[in-house]
This record gives sequence, structure tokens and C-alpha cells, in this order.
Amino acid sequence: MSNNLGVTPRDQDFSAWYNDLVIKADLADDSAVRGCMVIKPLGYALWENMQRALDDMFKATGHVNAYFPLFIPKSFLEKEADHVEGFAKECAVVTHHRLKANPNGHGLIVDPEAKLEEELIVRPTSETVIWNTYRNWIQSYRDLPLLINQWANVVRWEMRTRKFLRTTEFLWQEGHTAHATYEEAEEESRKILEVYRTFAEEWMGVPVLVGMKSENEKFAGAHHTYTIEALTQDVRAIQAGTSHHLGQNFAKAFDVKFQSKEGTLEYVYATSWGVSTRLIGTLIMVHSDDKGFVAPPRLAPVQVVIVPMGRDEETRNRTYGVSDQFAADLAAAGIRVRVDKREKESPGHKYNYWEMRGACTRIEVGPRDLDAGTVIIARRDTGDKETVSVDHVVARIPEILADMQANLFAKAKAFNLANTHRVDTWEEFESMFAGEGGAGFVLAHWDESILTAEKIAEKTKATIRCIPLEPLLPSDAEPGRCILTGNPSPRRVVFAKAY
Amino acid sequence: MSNNLGVTPRDQDFSAWYNDLVIKADLADDSAVRGCMVIKPLGYALWENMQRALDDMFKATGHVNAYFPLFIPKSFLEKEADHVEGFAKECAVVTHHRLKANPNGHGLIVDPEAKLEEELIVRPTSETVIWNTYRNWIQSYRDLPLLINQWANVVRWEMRTRKFLRTTEFLWQEGHTAHATYEEAEEESRKILEVYRTFAEEWMGVPVLVGMKSENEKFAGAHHTYTIEALTQDVRAIQAGTSHHLGQNFAKAFDVKFQSKEGTLEYVYATSWGVSTRLIGTLIMVHSDDKGFVAPPRLAPVQVVIVPMGRDEETRNRTYGVSDQFAADLAAAGIRVRVDKREKESPGHKYNYWEMRGACTRIEVGPRDLDAGTVIIARRDTGDKETVSVDHVVARIPEILADMQANLFAKAKAFNLANTHRVDTWEEFESMFAGEGGAGFVLAHWDESILTAEKIAEKTKATIRCIPLEPLLPSDAEPGRCILTGNPSPRRVVFAKAY
Repeated sequence: MSNNLGVTPRDQDFSAWYNDLVIKADLADDSAVRGCMVIKPLGYALWENMQRALDDMFKATGHVNAYFPLFIPKSFLEKEADHVEGFAKECAVVTHHRLKANPNGHGLIVDPEAKLEEELIVRPTSETVIWNTYRNWIQSYRDLPLLINQWANVVRWEMRTRKFLRTTEFLWQEGHTAHATYEEAEEESRKILEVYRTFAEEWMGVPVLVGMKSENEKFAGAHHTYTIEALTQDVRAIQAGTSHHLGQNFAKAFDVKFQSKEGTLEYVYATSWGVSTRLIGTLIMVHSDDKGFVAPPRLAPVQVVIVPMGRDEETRNRTYGVSDQFAADLAAAGIRVRVDKREKESPGHKYNYWEMRGACTRIEVGPRDLDAGTVIIARRDTGDKETVSVDHVVARIPEILADMQANLFAKAKAFNLANTHRVDTWEEFESMFAGEGGAGFVLAHWDESILTAEKIAEKTKATIRCIPLEPLLPSDAEPGRCILTGNPSPRRVVFAKAY
Repeated sequence: MSNNLGVTPRDQDFSAWYNDLVIKADLADDSAVRGCMVIKPLGYALWENMQRALDDMFKATGHVNAYFPLFIPKSFLEKEADHVEGFAKECAVVTHHRLKANPNGHGLIVDPEAKLEEELIVRPTSETVIWNTYRNWIQSYRDLPLLINQWANVVRWEMRTRKFLRTTEFLWQEGHTAHATYEEAEEESRKILEVYRTFAEEWMGVPVLVGMKSENEKFAGAHHTYTIEALTQDVRAIQAGTSHHLGQNFAKAFDVKFQSKEGTLEYVYATSWGVSTRLIGTLIMVHSDDKGFVAPPRLAPVQVVIVPMGRDEETRNRTYGVSDQFAADLAAAGIRVRVDKREKESPGHKYNYWEMRGACTRIEVGPRDLDAGTVIIARRDTGDKETVSVDHVVARIPEILADMQANLFAKAKAFNLANTHRVDTWEEFESMFAGEGGAGFVLAHWDESILTAEKIAEKTKATIRCIPLEPLLPSDAEPGRCILTGNPSPRRVVFAKAY
């Protein structure tokens, strides 16, 4: 049952809360195409802010953007054995290039004479088409490293979809780099992992665990995969970004060799890495509340909404004038601001409306406050209100935004810590993951066998989210006994139920 | 036969020159997928600059971005009769959602059990999927206008493709707006036409004719279409952007009605408008030369390349130091700058290299000039070189860039005027368009019959590019006799052979 805002409370049904919120907050809408969503202007503005920040970070670390074809010849997918295994089952396949009038006179049919010689796959990821291109771009060590990123849409035919978290089509960036040595590729994949961690924590305000995927969870075709893992308010893990060291797998599959400084012919080392519109779902699940979307100020489409009051025109002239001046001054200071001048809506309605849509702060411009030379500033995360003198507003807003940014992170960090557990017996482990809900991050010992990981997942639905790069506690790095088998384990790994 | 830079001279074979240049200037590359190109980092940087400028202009005129699905259900295409007629023959059709191992053991086949109930079309344009969505977003006049743009990839299965000008997949923006009245939609389509004209002329340095398409050339589904038309160096027209007033066609096809202020239920009026990566091809064909790509400074990925000289390390320490300081100061002034420190390449090689890739200016930092406190600045469009004192360089570069921007436009404008003709007899008209080449813009009378336009096109390959909104000369607006039929004509229209 939803509250008077049309959103199911989190503690009643977290999943329903999320679905309600995405719609009510105007972030996305259903589409007529199975599993595909429409990203509405507010959701897309958030994505644009994310893109800008990430793109700047990629460029600051030496990357450039390019664009590769949407379509991948079927034969390309076949070239890397693990890769095809990972993606063949969820491919949108283009088989024809023309429609024609239905001979029965009703509508259109696929023209059987326009069948493609080779089927084309709508890219689920672009390693194959890109490495087929890199073969022509790389001859010598002087052509390396090649540091390219692509902003694109991709398609994976998922059976169970959910807006932002898992959709048939989604938007993402995919970096694809080429290097002369294993070490350089390793450095690159770790550098990007750090970019992702920085973005998650400093921009999204989302604390993440940074680690390596276990063999059974790594990317199809990777040598190894790094990940950042966030924790949602319903204490499930969510993979927010991955950075893959691909070794020489794709270079071998597509025959990409270079002449080394020493004159030998060597296969190229590769990385690939990506984050997607899933980050928006992550944001929502970490910060938002029963009143709606809570956006971290650095990424929020609306950092300030100004609500001028006034029942008569004379009063409105006054509050509108002050509001417009605030808006101009705040915009000049680089702050994303809106003024809500709708006259048919009550102030209370507007408060709810903008709280739902994630405006970080609200300036209430009322005639009585103005008489006293003040306005009220309300803040989205804590709900705190303060009375601020009119001439202090433009200086005060950035302080509140900075404090809110820090507060969202600190709150989520404390939540993550409170929901990080160390478990040493199978009984405890199993009971923690019993039932439908999540159990936070559970650090437990594992014997490094894929079979064991699969058995644990089967029994508890908990999977290995990552092997942390730095132990959370020093003792996490000490050896122990596998939670399931009792076999030796070199260190604790992180288990969780995951989105 | 190509010159020593690997580019066929324009006067020898304009078409070969274009194809050579796109590759040699590192703007795009072939892909393994028929008709699709790879946009290389330099070409993509140009597109990013175009996107940024256009996006700012769209936002300044009240538009917001959103994102709609890549796939369009086949039945949607069928709903608007003219629209389907225009696009059905060039559609990439997704029929299946899974591959499986070939039972014969070799590779993959399309899984016949994963056939879609309804085929999906990869969007050739998004009117249908967007208007199907707008039905849920528009109820009242208060929901209007709806001013949305989308940056996206689209696919049209073209039989004859050419990099940037006509590719199976291309990148573009498509605006889709909804309005309460015919007049408001008309105002919107004209406003965007003016944005396009401004962008073409002030950013690309490409003078354009602004006009309306004749009935036979309008967008499939439009009430009427506006266009901007540029002229290439081989005196052919190139359509660079279009803005469509769609009337109520899509609102009727998708049943999108709103309650007016007066309480009546009305169909919504629509516009759509787009420019694409074709603009890059247009740029090249208007400004570039036998030495390579000439980029207008406001959009150029590389506005300045600095080439430090020096055969020994001591000299290089000095020229590198000066170059790095220039680069830092220019970058701080918002100028896009590179320093070419490759030590195995001669200065002459670097000059050719960056001229080919469209660097607007070049700073040659040589030890002897430095002794005199000067460097040489060379300019890409005119080839002029000037000696500039070291402390004046950072102030001088923006002046040269501004002058080059103005010069490119002025030169192209003069070229267009010199290649704009008025023709009054069929004999002259026919002979102008005889042979393979273009004949510039030919202003002639036309009797407004589609049949006549088709006959003229059949006989001469010249099509009506537009009916200018403002007559180029006052006399162009005077009535006359159709060039082919001798029937009455209200005004001259623009004929040309077109890309």
C-alpha cells in the first residue's frame, strides 16, 4: 500500500518502493518495448551530470572518446570462447533489412528477400567489434597504449528487467584499452577502478567495497575483473562498476600483434571497463526515502528549488522579484536552480512535488519572512529548516549543498559498517541469509573453489561479491577455514545477496 | 592518383579526394559491418564539440534531453501511412533474441525457439515510439508545450553509403515537441531552423540557404519541412539539417489528445528536427583542401599544435620548456592545444601530419627564433606564416583563430554567390546540369507540380533543394514561367544536384 505520495514505504516493500519512486519522481517511464524504459528528462539530466563528471575524469587520465558500430557480425561473437558463452543467450539478432506490404493487404511483413547473409547482433558489449578494428590500428609499440572510451547504448535480452538496474537496452560507457605489457594493462585496470571508486564515493556519495571478482563471477572473456560494490538500504549488494584485465584473450581471438621495442612480434594486452545507467538505480537504492528521490548535490539536476508565495498579485510581484534575483545569482554561481511559479498549486503541494523529484534544497520565499528580511531554507536529506537573511542566501546554499553531500556519504558509510558482519560457522551464515531479505556484507572464509561458491549460492542465494583489495580489518587477511567445506582459506571474502 | 600525402587532388576526382581525406585525416575508418563506419577519436572530438554547441543552444531555447528505446515495434511503424512508406524499405529488423550452439558443432545459429512475437525495428527515427509515449504524458494544455530532444544512434539500411554523408548507422539528435496550436508548432519549427542556420554559419563557417522543402522532398509524415542547404566545393547541394512541422499527423496516428483551456479535446501539434554526423561530411566538403582537413576554429579538436625543434637534448630542453608554457597558457585561455614532441619525426613531417588533421594554427618553436625572442605561427586556411614575439603568442592565437573562423565563412559565402545562377530557359538549364558534375544553386521557375519536379529530376538529376524563405534577390520572388512546362510559377526555387 502506497503512502499519500503514491509511494509504498520502504519498510513495507522495498521493491515496490523502488518501482513506485522511479515513476513518481519522473526519472523513467515504461515503454511499449519489452524490458526497455524511457529515461525521462529529469532522469536523463542526472545521467548527463554523471557523464560529464566521468568523461572529465577519463580525459584527465589520458583517454579519448570514439564510436564503433552498433552491430556485431555473428561470427565475431564466436571468436572468444568464454565471451560467446556469456552473451549468446541474450542477444537481439537482426536477420533482415527490409519490410514490405503484407500481400494480404494488412500492414507490413518482413521481406523474405531481404534476409542478411550473416546475422548481426545488437552489441551487448563491444570487445569483439573493437578488437577487430584495433588489428588495423596497432602495428608497433609506438601505437600503444591505445586509450579509448565509448558512450553508447547496448542491448542484453534479460528475462527479468527493472528500470535502471537491469533493462534490455541500457546506456553506458565502455573503455577499451590496448597495452604492450601485462603490467601496463594491470595498472590501467586499477587506475580506472580508482576512478570508479572516486566517482561513486565523492560524486554519488555512495561508499563502495573495492575488490576482485572470484573466477566464477568475472567477465566473460576476462583474465580477471575488478568491481566496486555498493550496499542498498535493504542490505543487498549492487555491482556498480567493473574494470576487466582481459589479458591477451581478445588479441589472440582477433590476431592483434605488435612489434615490440626489441623487434619481436607480441600479442597486445587489453582492458575493458564500464559503468551504466545502473548507477542511477544504485543512487536511488542507497539514498532515497519514502518522500521520494534524494540526489547527491554534485549530481542533482535540481540543487535548489525556489518557491515564492503570495495569494495576490502585489505580493507575488514582490516574492517573484526576490526569487528571480536568487535564481540569477545562484545560476551565476554555477548552481542548478528552478523557480516554481505555478499558481494553481499550493506551497505544500510544491514542497512534496520537489521532494519527490530530489531537489536538494528549497528556498521558501514568503511575504511575512520578507518583511523580516529573511527566507526559509529547507534541506532534502535531513528535512532541517533554517531561517536565513535574504542577503546571506546565495552564500549559504553552497554550504548546505556541501554539507548534504558529505552527510549522504557519511550516513551510507555508517550504514554499510553497521551491516558488515564476520561469520565463522555455517549455521550462522545460513541463518543470516535465510528468508527473502538481504543480510549486508558478510565476510567469511572460502576455500577458493568455484564449486564451493556455487554450492553456497545454491543453498543461500549469497554470492561472492568480491575479494577486497585491502582487508577491511587486518584480521580479514588472516587464513582460516572455509565456511562451507572447512578447507583452508587464505582470507575472508565478501558474500551478499545481490541485485 | 593521390598526391604525396596519399590524398587524390580535388580537381582530379572530388569523390576520391573526400574518401581519401576522411581516412588520412584520422576522422573515420571502415568497419566490418556493411555501411557502418568507425568514428575515430579525432572525428569524435569534432562531434563532441558540435554536440556541446548545439546542446547549449537547444537548452537556451527551453529544450531538455531524454532517451527513448532503440527498438520500435513493427506495428508502430504501420500507424502513420506516409511515415511507413518512407522508412519500411530500409529497416534493420530484429526477429530473434537468442543464439545457440550449432547442432553440427560449428559456431552459433539463431535459436528458432527465440523468435519474437512481434518483430522490432531498429529506430530509423523516433516519431512513432515517442508519440506512443507522449500519449501518456499529455492530458491538458498545462502539459504543453513539451520540448524534448534526444541524442541517439539511428539505422537506415542505405544501399549506397559514404562515411559521414550516408551511413547505415549514424549519430544524431532528434527533437520532438508537442504544442497546443498550429501556430506554436510553426514557431517552434522556425525557431529550430534558425538555431541550425546559426550553428552552420557561425560555428561551422558554412553558409546555408534556408528554405522549405517542396512536397515531394518533405519528411515522410510531415505537414511541411524546412531545411538548411549548403554548397560543396564540387558545387553540389548538401542538406545539412531539417526541421519538420508534423501537423497533427502523429497525434492522430497515436491518439494523443489534450484538454484545451476551453475544455475541448484536441489533437496535439508536433514538430521534429534533426542534424547528424552528416554535418562532419558537410564541413569537410565545404572547407577542406588537398593538404587535408580544414576545421573551423570554433569546432576544431586541435586549434593549436606546437612543434618544438631541436636536434640535441639541450636545445630540446629549451624549446620544450617554451612549448609547454605556451600550451599551459593557451589551455588556461580555453584553447584546445597539443604539443608534438615525437622525436623520430621531422618538423616537416609533423607539419604535414597536423595540416592533414585540421590543426587550425601551428606554432613552430625553433632555437634560432627563440634567440631572437620569437616563434613562427602558421595558419591552416591561408598557409600564411608570421613571426611573433614570444610574449605576444598567447594573445595573438585567439586573434588568428577568430580571423580564420570569419575567413572560412567569407570564402565559402563568396563561393556560394559565385555559384548561384538564375536560369530562364530549359536549354540552358539542361546544359548546366549535363555531365557528371554539379552546377551550383540554380534559381529557376517551377510550376509547383510534383510531376514536373520529378520530370526535371529524371532529365537532369537536379532536384528542388528548397523554396527560400527570403528571396536571395527581390526579383526571385516575382512570378514567371516554369522552366520545363512554361506554366505559371509564383517565384523561383533552388535546383541543384545533391549529395
